[in-house]
This record gives sequence, C-alpha cells and structure tokens, in this order.
Amino acid sequence: MKNIKLGLLGLGTVGSGVLQMVRQNADKILDVTGCKLTVKTALVRNLDNYTKYAAETSLTTDFDEILNDDEIKIVVELMGGIHPAKEYITTLLKNHKNVVTANKDLIASYGPELMAVAHENHCDLMFEASVAGGIPILRTIANSFTADKVTEVKGIVNGTTNYILTQMSQQGWSYHQALAQAQQLGFAESDPTNDVTGKDAAYKMIILSQFAFGTQLDIKDIAVEGIDRLNDADVQQAAAFGYVIKLLGIAKLVNNGVFVEVGPVLIPRDHPLATINNEFNAVMVTAQAVGDTLFYGRGAGGLPTANSVLSDITTVTKNIILGTNGNLFNNYQQPYIPAKLADIKYPYYLSLTLQDVPGQMLKLTQMMTDVNASFREITQTKDGKIAHIAIITHRMSKEQLQTLLTKVANDQSINLSAAYKVMG
Amino acid sequence: MKNIKLGLLGLGTVGSGVLQMVRQNADKILDVTGCKLTVKTALVRNLDNYTKYAAETSLTTDFDEILNDDEIKIVVELMGGIHPAKEYITTLLKNHKNVVTANKDLIASYGPELMAVAHENHCDLMFEASVAGGIPILRTIANSFTADKVTEVKGIVNGTTNYILTQMSQQGWSYHQALAQAQQLGFAESDPTNDVTGKDAAYKMIILSQFAFGTQLDIKDIAVEGIDRLNDADVQQAAAFGYVIKLLGIAKLVNNGVFVEVGPVLIPRDHPLATINNEFNAVMVTAQAVGDTLFYGRGAGGLPTANSVLSDITTVTKNIILGTNGNLFNNYQQPYIPAKLADIKYPYYLSLTLQDVPGQMLKLTQMMTDVNASFREITQTKDGKIAHIAIITHRMSKEQLQTLLTKVANDQSINLSAAYKVMG
Repeated sequence: MKNIKLGLLGLGTVGSGVLQMVRQNADKILDVTGCKLTVKTALVRNLDNYTKYAAETSLTTDFDEILNDDEIKIVVELMGGIHPAKEYITTLLKNHKNVVTANKDLIASYGPELMAVAHENHCDLMFEASVAGGIPILRTIANSFTADKVTEVKGIVNGTTNYILTQMSQQGWSYHQALAQAQQLGFAESDPTNDVTGKDAAYKMIILSQFAFGTQLDIKDIAVEGIDRLNDADVQQAAAFGYVIKLLGIAKLVNNGVFVEVGPVLIPRDHPLATINNEFNAVMVTAQAVGDTLFYGRGAGGLPTANSVLSDITTVTKNIILGTNGNLFNNYQQPYIPAKLADIKYPYYLSLTLQDVPGQMLKLTQMMTDVNASFREITQTKDGKIAHIAIITHRMSKEQLQTLLTKVANDQSINLSAAYKVMG
Repeated sequence: MKNIKLGLLGLGTVGSGVLQMVRQNADKILDVTGCKLTVKTALVRNLDNYTKYAAETSLTTDFDEILNDDEIKIVVELMGGIHPAKEYITTLLKNHKNVVTANKDLIASYGPELMAVAHENHCDLMFEASVAGGIPILRTIANSFTADKVTEVKGIVNGTTNYILTQMSQQGWSYHQALAQAQQLGFAESDPTNDVTGKDAAYKMIILSQFAFGTQLDIKDIAVEGIDRLNDADVQQAAAFGYVIKLLGIAKLVNNGVFVEVGPVLIPRDHPLATINNEFNAVMVTAQAVGDTLFYGRGAGGLPTANSVLSDITTVTKNIILGTNGNLFNNYQQPYIPAKLADIKYPYYLSLTLQDVPGQMLKLTQMMTDVNASFREITQTKDGKIAHIAIITHRMSKEQLQTLLTKVANDQSINLSAAYKVMG
C-alpha cells in the first residue's frame, strides 16, 4: 500500500467536500487505486476560521509550505479567479507537482498554456470539476468519443440561471422576482452578474469546445447573451407556442467551422433538455456514429463538485502508480476556424412592438421578405396603441438575421425586444 | 507514429461499424492516441458474404490466423454467445493479445474469471459496449465515481422492450400488436424471447452491479420479470394514476446488502426516466456525494455500439503506448451480500379481479391488513360479474408482498394479474 499526500489551496464548500469524501470513502479508494490518500496541508486565508479541520489536516497561510513539501504529490486548487491561481499552478507544475483544479475561468482562458507546462514537467493537470459540477462530461468526451466525430455539444451549464428560468416558467414570475428568490435560497450569489449575463456559461462552453473540437476560443469569439433582459411575457409566449426558454450554450461544427454561442433558446417542451429543471445541469453531445447522448446531474454544490475533483485525484493517483503522469487530459488539438455567418441557420423567435397604425405589419413583412426570411408562426396582441408581435421564423442564417435586425433598428416605429434561437 | 493492427471476430452490424469508424476517423484517432489503427484480419463464417470488405481487410474462416499473427495486438470479439467466444478470448489473452468485446452474456457470466486471465497475462480486457450500446456507462462508473459510494443504479437498458412499451403507452396498443410492429421495423428480433422476458436486461444489470458495487451476481440471484405478460389495461390504468410503465433494471444497496431486480415499474410521468422513449436507453446512477446523475443515448445499433467498442480500442491503444496494459477495467471487488427481503421496500401497483359478490372487498382489505399493508390509491371497475381492482399501496417490504401474494393465490375468488413496483 502506497500513501499519497495531497495539498489543498482553499477550504470552502468544495474543499471541505473533498476532505469529507477522502475520509469517508478511504476504503473504496484504497480498493480501487491501491493507495491511501491523505490531505496533508490546506492553504487558507485565516487560520481561525478552519480550526475544526486542524485535527486531521495541517493548516497554513503560506503557499510555500505546500510548494516545498516533497511528500505532497497532488495539489488541488480551489481558490478560483485568475490570479494568483495561475501563478500558483504554474509554479507547482514546474516543481513537479500534479495539479487538480475546478477553476473554470482560468482553464477557459489559459488551459492550453497550463497543459503545456504540465506536459513539459511530466505532471498531470486535470479539471473535470470546472464544467457542470458533478457531471463527468470532460473525461467522457476525452475517453469515450475519441474515435467518433463530435458535431455538437449543447447544454444547460449554469445552475443559477436554470433555477431562475424554471421559476419564471413554472410560477409565472418576473426575472427580478425569480432572482430575488434564488438569492434567498442560495442558488444565486449576491452579485449574480457572471451567471445572469451568460459569462459563466460562456467559459464552460470554451472548455467543452476544447474537448469536443480540439479548438481554443477566446471569450471574444463567442456571442453571449444572458437572461437579465428576459421578459416574463416572452417566457409565456414561448410556452403558448409549445416551448420552454433555457439559457443554452451551443458549440457546433458547421461546414467544419466552429460556432459557439450562449443565449436564451426556445426548446420544444418534449425535448430532453426542456425537462432539466432548477439547479440541475445537462449536456447533450452529438457525434456522427453515436448520435445524441445526454448527461445530467447537479451542476454545482460542494459534494457533487468534490466528486469530480476526486475523479481527477484518483486518476492522477493511478498515473503515479503506473508512472504515467504528464499525458494531456485532452490531447485533441485543432486550429480554430470560425463558422461562416451565412452557414449558421436556425429558426428564430422574434418579439416586437409596433405602433398600431395602418401599414406597420406590411412594413415588417417587407423587411422579412427583403432578407428572404419567412414566418412559421405569428401572433399579435394589442395594448392600447401598441401591438405586440411574436414570430417564429423559418430557418434563417445569422447573416440574414443581422441584416433584418439592422433594418428593424433603423425604423423608429418598430421595436425589437428579443431575438432567440429556436431548437427542434 | 506507431501502427497498431486489429483483428475482428465477427463482421456483422457492429463489426462493419467498427471498420467504418476506424477508417473515417483515422486522423482524429492518430491525433489523440499517436497511433494509426488498421483492421488487419476479420474472422467470418462465409468468405463469400463479405467480399466488399476484402480490399482493406484480410478475411479468414480460421481463428488461428488471428491468434498466431504477432502483428495483431488487439482482437475485438463480436460473435456473441458463450461458446466458442469464451474459449477464443481465453486463448487470445493467454497469447498476450488485448481483447475488446461487446458480449454481455459472456461478461455477465464469466467477467471476473476472464478479467483475472487478462490481468495474469498483462493484457487488457474491455467491454464498454456490453451494456447500453452507445452510452459510456461502465467507464464512467469506473473512472468518475471511484471515490464516491454508489448507492443505486437503475435504468432502461433494453431498447426492444422500451420501443414496445412506448408504443403500448402512446398508441394504446396491446403487447402483441406492439411486438409485431417492432419486429417489422427491426427493433425486435424474430425470436424476441431474451428481450421480452427481461433476461437481456438482467445480464446488463449483473455487469452494472460489478461496476457499481464490485459484486458478482449470478442470474439466479435476480428476480426477473419481462413485459410478455403485461396487459394494455394496466398500461392505461397506470397512466390514469399518473405513471408510465417501463421495464426497469434496479441494482440497489439496502443496508449494505445488494438487491437487483428487473421488471415492469410504474414511473411518475415527470421523472426523467419516464421521458426515455422508443429504442433509447438511459441509466441513472445515484451516489452519496454526487446525487442523481443520468446518462442517455442509443442502446443498440451498429454505429452507437461501434463507438463504445472504439472507446475501448483507443484506451487499449493508449495503454500499449504507455506500456500499462493488464490493469483491470473494473478493479472494485466486494463480496456479494444479498439484501434482506424485509429491508427492500417499495409501493406496489396491484391489479386484481374479484368475483363481484358481497364481502370480497372486505376479504381483500383483511388480507392487506394481516400483512400490515395499506392502500394509497384504489379504483374499481365492473365487467359483468367481475370487478377489476387496481391498487397503489403504501411502501411495503418484499417480505410483506410475498406473504400477501401467497394469501391471494390461496383464495379461489381473487385473481392477481400484476404486482409491479412504483417509483418516487
């Protein structure tokens, strides 16, 4: 039996989950890996807040204590944020320590650079927990779709917004009512900006694209729209059309170009993704041979995320035993070729208000015709002198859509409040 | 670049899918594994039927040609059945060839024995495709839940019966109507016995239990009921109660005992497993830390199954490169302790017919009371002198259920036609 000692950077919800799992499931870990794992040292900001852990794990405020401890073979980074996490991880790898992290912002921005450092130093760098909490999606794409061609990865990868959208849809609440409740219940942070603007989901889609297509995108390559401007009227109108609105990340191969986008999408009510509710996440992977597959589970929370961290730790442990550290977590690498706007085609849901005077509808129809777009469904309701129009178009390209939106924006009497993709 | 040569035993739907994937995705496989894979030789029964493959792969009717070819490092067994597959695989492993198989009957019955032979000979034996076709469920349990305690695995793991049940539920068809259509469309074989009696699902549950709990069960340890005696009236009655009937395999830890059963189960309409339709499969894994996770995809078909075979082939390939063949696919091993009947508790759906004479209902109620069981819902309909009773009970143990069923069987005037577990 071999003893492997771990270091932890950060001892919050996930960190304490890791401690708990290592202790509770020690027998099974020993049975499967042949190793006894111990968390030797944890880096914290303030020793006084963590005294309850001091019996089993030594606490420190000094990073060097972990860095210079030769007994520690695996370091788990759970601090979050880019700095100093990036510098810490780089230094650890250069000192031949294997690293496991749940840091999505860091991996989305510097994943390939850090993986190269790990590889050069014959160390592992793994980050299953950075996407979709408890769902083992990265390892699955890397190991189980190796010989297939992944054509699309789409998913509900942010639990906060999915909780809010579920409440808006099921309770008829406004965005602000649902957000307030999510904050009260701990499903949304007091500053929810990163979640509700779609930025958190965009980072996760960057990492999923690395695994699915081998490409490295920058957040600037992605059109990102959140749910912070979503109207409850549109949620209800979508329901009347037979759809549920979800914040969906889509990463898709279109004529061998890569297209990644995050935004509200109308999903048919009987589609598996429409049934993913509250804080749950789901990722649908479509590949040429295997077809549609879906992976569902808790997207956040201390223990589910800790389980993904532990799956990395046990993989690194097996590699230590076999002497095979230093292979890339994801070794599929391709140049990023953006998809052409003319090739990216969806039906769209358009929500507009028109001044209710004669000829307005003709003008809108003319604009649609000018870009060669057409309606599949349309409803009109009146509110005094204002007409609300909701349209589901036939499939149109992003190029057509952008021309149409420019035309609409240039007309004072027509106001567009939403343009969302429609699935199905 | 390293060349790795494969041998195939069997060249049916899955075998030709493997050939197609190896050829079509050669670049990606090379990129990810650093190896070029080639299917060098395929064993077939009749050379004349496979001439279209002869340009790229040498065909033979002689197993020894593959066994004695030193260039062939990985052999894929796709013949099915226990004999001679077991002897072939044993001989191959003893000759230091790595083996990938999709043979569920063989692995369910002799998995641990064959894995031991592989381990002794420093070879890999992998069998992802033996359960749930395209869903990468075995590798996920082995690699992603290593440090968690899996408490339950349940799933829809037979596509034929799920297709039949979907048609019975959605079209109101009888079992025989739905089976006939499934056979016409190729979703059921001309002899569907193994599927419709639940035997196929039971073998898959044995393999899932090996991975989830480390235990080796025999098919005799499992209560197996199929759908071949399922009444359309019960499908409709379940719908009226708000449930969908699915053929569900359940493997569960109950007070640290293992309980595995296959049978029709009533699933609440809004549960994710209730939405899995037609030939699709889904497996739900519940573990202590991670909670509920669900994996969904095509359960059969040439290409989805070939993808799982390829995930094994690429894993073996990486092991060849690293020199790490011979580690167990699943190295979690525990003794099998059966759960106590008194500990296994579910609500049950009971379907009965009574002669409609005074005192019958009192008799039935008395029988329930005698075993300390009680109703949650009950409906009665009449058909001449016969009363049909459908009951959903409160939770009761299998011990209580068996006592009740014996009492009912001993009474000439009460006839029980179904006793199915109820989820949720």
